[in-house]
Amino acid sequence: MSTVKTDQNAVEKRLVIVGVGLIGGSLGLALRAAGFQGEIVGAGRDAGRLQQAVDCGAIDRFDTDVCAAVSNASMVLLAVPMGTMRSMMALIASTLPEDAIITDAGSVKSSFAADATAVFADSLHRVVPGHPIAGSENSGIEAAREELFQQRRVILTPLAESSDDDVQRVKHLWQLSGAQVHCLPLEKHDAALAASSHLPHFLSFALVDMFAAQTNKDDIFKFAAGGFRDFTRIAASDPVMWRDVALANREAVVNVLDDYVDSLASFREQLLKGDGEGIQQMFTRAREARRNWAELVEGRAVDEADAHTE
Amino acid sequence: MSTVKTDQNAVEKRLVIVGVGLIGGSLGLALRAAGFQGEIVGAGRDAGRLQQAVDCGAIDRFDTDVCAAVSNASMVLLAVPMGTMRSMMALIASTLPEDAIITDAGSVKSSFAADATAVFADSLHRVVPGHPIAGSENSGIEAAREELFQQRRVILTPLAESSDDDVQRVKHLWQLSGAQVHCLPLEKHDAALAASSHLPHFLSFALVDMFAAQTNKDDIFKFAAGGFRDFTRIAASDPVMWRDVALANREAVVNVLDDYVDSLASFREQLLKGDGEGIQQMFTRAREARRNWAELVEGRAVDEADAHTE
Repeated sequence: MSTVKTDQNAVEKRLVIVGVGLIGGSLGLALRAAGFQGEIVGAGRDAGRLQQAVDCGAIDRFDTDVCAAVSNASMVLLAVPMGTMRSMMALIASTLPEDAIITDAGSVKSSFAADATAVFADSLHRVVPGHPIAGSENSGIEAAREELFQQRRVILTPLAESSDDDVQRVKHLWQLSGAQVHCLPLEKHDAALAASSHLPHFLSFALVDMFAAQTNKDDIFKFAAGGFRDFTRIAASDPVMWRDVALANREAVVNVLDDYVDSLASFREQLLKGDGEGIQQMFTRAREARRNWAELVEGRAVDEADAHTE
Repeated sequence: MSTVKTDQNAVEKRLVIVGVGLIGGSLGLALRAAGFQGEIVGAGRDAGRLQQAVDCGAIDRFDTDVCAAVSNASMVLLAVPMGTMRSMMALIASTLPEDAIITDAGSVKSSFAADATAVFADSLHRVVPGHPIAGSENSGIEAAREELFQQRRVILTPLAESSDDDVQRVKHLWQLSGAQVHCLPLEKHDAALAASSHLPHFLSFALVDMFAAQTNKDDIFKFAAGGFRDFTRIAASDPVMWRDVALANREAVVNVLDDYVDSLASFREQLLKGDGEGIQQMFTRAREARRNWAELVEGRAVDEADAHTE
């Protein structure tokens, strides 16, 4: 870890974070706590929130003029919604130093790569797409915390053109924040996250919206309990951010959605046939896979693995 | 509350709980803590677990011969899987005192009513179907706790034949345990719970099972995080209990599942058309409904209402 810090401190003179919310703010806090010695500059539209980020120590200073903010950056992290990535890159292209690395924190990598290619076609060697798989129940700088990336994963999806040195610098930055960094081809990232993250969000939104349109919606909501609460927690997420994710990753999402609708059709068949054995087998396979996941990823005993009675 | 206790203590001489797991055990603990003075008898197959229930104070004694256990009951609570309700009632019919109330804790009320009607056609006045909407991450007597029903809802779905006095006695018992008791026609119960509880469980099982069959399942599970964790927590539930719920409530489940699949088809259309506005409207309606629910049911500020970034 001390080697990482040395490398990092030697190389990264000035990190500019565009969009200092939960992710950007937490990164700033984590880097400071880990001894990062470069300057950390925030950029965005809302001076009040950026001042909050200064006050809590996430950034050293800020500029609401993004072009000015990035003008002497050694690395720029774009932590804005997917739908504004391209216009943000177009905006900063003229003032960004030639040797500054461009990385991001967006949930869809093919989309970011396309946006970066459209703007920086001639200097893609310095573009390193990234995605910290971390979140919290809250958003914004007020939710930022230095431990957010501890034991969480960050996926980098380097382009064919990305320079190895630049990939290493982005990797080191995230490692310094406490994250485990993985490299993955961007198609693989987008297909995996379409399933594990994007689809559950859309399913949850769609379920709650469908309930709200039912004639017995009052009964449904009145008697909803713990299963509903957890299943639909993510339906309270930010509509704009997730709209952008849906549009940016639509191909992979449609693929896995189609598989899911096929699964639901099979389950419906089993129900109508009264195929208890088939249903129990499916539920058992799912429970097994869910328990294995909990052991694998969360590294803990599955105390949540038993029956819910509702 | 003291009136309730008095009524209860005056009337319920001997409550027999068939199936002393999370629900039955918690009810025993809650009643004891609330000053219930009747005898609480456990019945089931596993003497070791029933002894555990005695040791923790959930029941006073037990009998692994269910017929013997119920022979001098004033009320019997059946807390067994839906699929075994009918055979259990048939088993105890010969020894059950004529004036003993029969109630249950099953998740589907039309099914229990049909089972009770098949067995007790001549004495339906003493049948009071009930459903405590409470659970925990764990099952079994070791997970039982006296606060389980505090601020939780119990729905009673009296039959046309159910005697008002018997309904009141069951109501008082659950109130004594700390629950809010509601009466609802059983069709309304089954339709509401098919949506708020049953469907989310089946959707969660189906999603995890579908993921486990994907060619990129290793990537999917490896990079799954908090959204997936909460969405699929209920996929680790007991397959037998939920198989029984699925079969017992299949008609209501298919109805709401069909509406859901229609919603997913609309979302798929929006995705393919790139209809960002429509998608954002749907997500926004869902977030609004989810926030309203959290305020209504959980009576707390929605600190989970903001964006998740994954």
